[in-house]
Amino acid sequence: MNEFELIERYFVRANQSDNIRIGIGDDAAVLSVEKGKELVVATDTLVEGIHFSREQAASSLGHKTLAVNLSDLAAMSANPSWVTLNLVLPPDLHEQWVGEFARGFLGLADRFKVALVGGDTSCGPLSMTATVGGWVTKGQASSRSGACAGDTIYVSGTLGDAALGLDLARRGEISFRDRNNIFLKKLMWPEPRILLGDKLRSVATSIIDISDGLMADLDHILSQSGDLGGLLYEDKIPINVAALQSYSRRDCTKFALSGGDDYELCFTVPPEKGNLFETLIEEVDTNVTAIGIIDSNPGIRVFDLNDRRVDISKMGYLHNW
Amino acid sequence: MNEFELIERYFVRANQSDNIRIGIGDDAAVLSVEKGKELVVATDTLVEGIHFSREQAASSLGHKTLAVNLSDLAAMSANPSWVTLNLVLPPDLHEQWVGEFARGFLGLADRFKVALVGGDTSCGPLSMTATVGGWVTKGQASSRSGACAGDTIYVSGTLGDAALGLDLARRGEISFRDRNNIFLKKLMWPEPRILLGDKLRSVATSIIDISDGLMADLDHILSQSGDLGGLLYEDKIPINVAALQSYSRRDCTKFALSGGDDYELCFTVPPEKGNLFETLIEEVDTNVTAIGIIDSNPGIRVFDLNDRRVDISKMGYLHNW
Repeated sequence: MNEFELIERYFVRANQSDNIRIGIGDDAAVLSVEKGKELVVATDTLVEGIHFSREQAASSLGHKTLAVNLSDLAAMSANPSWVTLNLVLPPDLHEQWVGEFARGFLGLADRFKVALVGGDTSCGPLSMTATVGGWVTKGQASSRSGACAGDTIYVSGTLGDAALGLDLARRGEISFRDRNNIFLKKLMWPEPRILLGDKLRSVATSIIDISDGLMADLDHILSQSGDLGGLLYEDKIPINVAALQSYSRRDCTKFALSGGDDYELCFTVPPEKGNLFETLIEEVDTNVTAIGIIDSNPGIRVFDLNDRRVDISKMGYLHNW
Repeated sequence: MNEFELIERYFVRANQSDNIRIGIGDDAAVLSVEKGKELVVATDTLVEGIHFSREQAASSLGHKTLAVNLSDLAAMSANPSWVTLNLVLPPDLHEQWVGEFARGFLGLADRFKVALVGGDTSCGPLSMTATVGGWVTKGQASSRSGACAGDTIYVSGTLGDAALGLDLARRGEISFRDRNNIFLKKLMWPEPRILLGDKLRSVATSIIDISDGLMADLDHILSQSGDLGGLLYEDKIPINVAALQSYSRRDCTKFALSGGDDYELCFTVPPEKGNLFETLIEEVDTNVTAIGIIDSNPGIRVFDLNDRRVDISKMGYLHNW
């Protein structure tokens, strides 16, 4: 089966959107633009052995390839629209694998009405690159750079789940093939917070998606907002209750602060927009938690229940896989 | 040197364009859109051992990674604007290699005023993916699907040079390191025909870029224009005169028909637009040659000087590297 047949069989579908003037099958895609919009573009590559292992189900890999990119659009409060997909496939991969991958990829694409408009396949060591495009009303994209001292720091969902799932699987306590485990589910089927990002557009001063761990990603907000600092309260950091059955609270905090791959949003809201924020958030089916406050002393400081400073120097970035 | 430092040192520059509202350094780039335009998107991955060997100079690889994508925009008559770059780099690659790669990539980007707006770097087997975006006035993108019986078939430049360069290097007659050889130059530093594509917008009924060889690519025009056919005249197919010093005319034809990687344009012009075409083409510093005619009998047929049909069944696709 050659490249054209592979694409035709598994990836090409009727255009799902009126916005696609020319889709897959020409040298490039041509997409129409609504008046008053700006284009938002994000891209990410997943590489076998670095970002995933072959044990991971192909359908979840398809899902994740798109999800990590949609997560970046969520952090810009953008409305996703199209995606290109570049697959590098080793010769030992069965066609069935490609079919499963496509199912996961297109399943998520359908949910968010994202049209696959181009890409390519090559032979080589397994990796996949997706590039997503979305639209946002002119001047209304969120960014990392608007946080101010006094803003409340929020995160969505629970943190550390993906890193914890990886840890449990590596210890042999769960199997990578267990599709029902809530931690592995977070690792393999991350949910891009598109709707939340959309609601935050008018209230958040900064947003980032947590892909490298809360500390690393919050640090980007702080430095890009003008060398600000962040105070975090250990007991506020949202931990999955199930996590506390296998790990101490301190270990859970470590996963939450440093573990990557959660794809939750971290964002800041100024006090005067607190009420509006509370109203908006009721329309979203995603928990959000206030975990701290922005201040003007550079760096992140974490305090425990007794107001003692937690030594976070040992909680460095945990690389996945 | 981590990912952020690598990007900062070699790839990040001041925004070259007013169109970039948010460039590299946030979750996604935000780009402004001119009124009445459509977005054109193309993407391609190059993989070591499939599309190139490590012998190829890093700077030429950087150039080519962008050039093959710009060539796709040229085939849509689009005006290139932005690019994202995803690099997968093996640990044994020196930082110097990355610097050279960036030089080649950004050098071509500068020439066409294309802004690098995002991407990522991962560790893994060497490959690179670029995704380019460009703009075209609403409804004016060229495509593969508009050819009609009676249209003249044209190509730009000379054909088969890249495949011939590869063949000479493999035979040991030239070295991959020879940067002045005209055939290797075509293979390693292809020139995207952006200006030609722009001029063709109003006269060509179809355009494609020749990346897989003339026969394969012309065949896409024919099938997507409604199962048409193409008559080609062997003696009209533009061959580099230097090629005839090393190969017979028939062998050169074979390279021209089947060799990939030339990144010239193949396009069709209706007879009634012939005069306008001649005028437009004078403004472009690229040779174009009429090589045949579209007709309504499906398939490509090649005729020699004596009007005898050439057996092209033995001239199949020559895969590079």
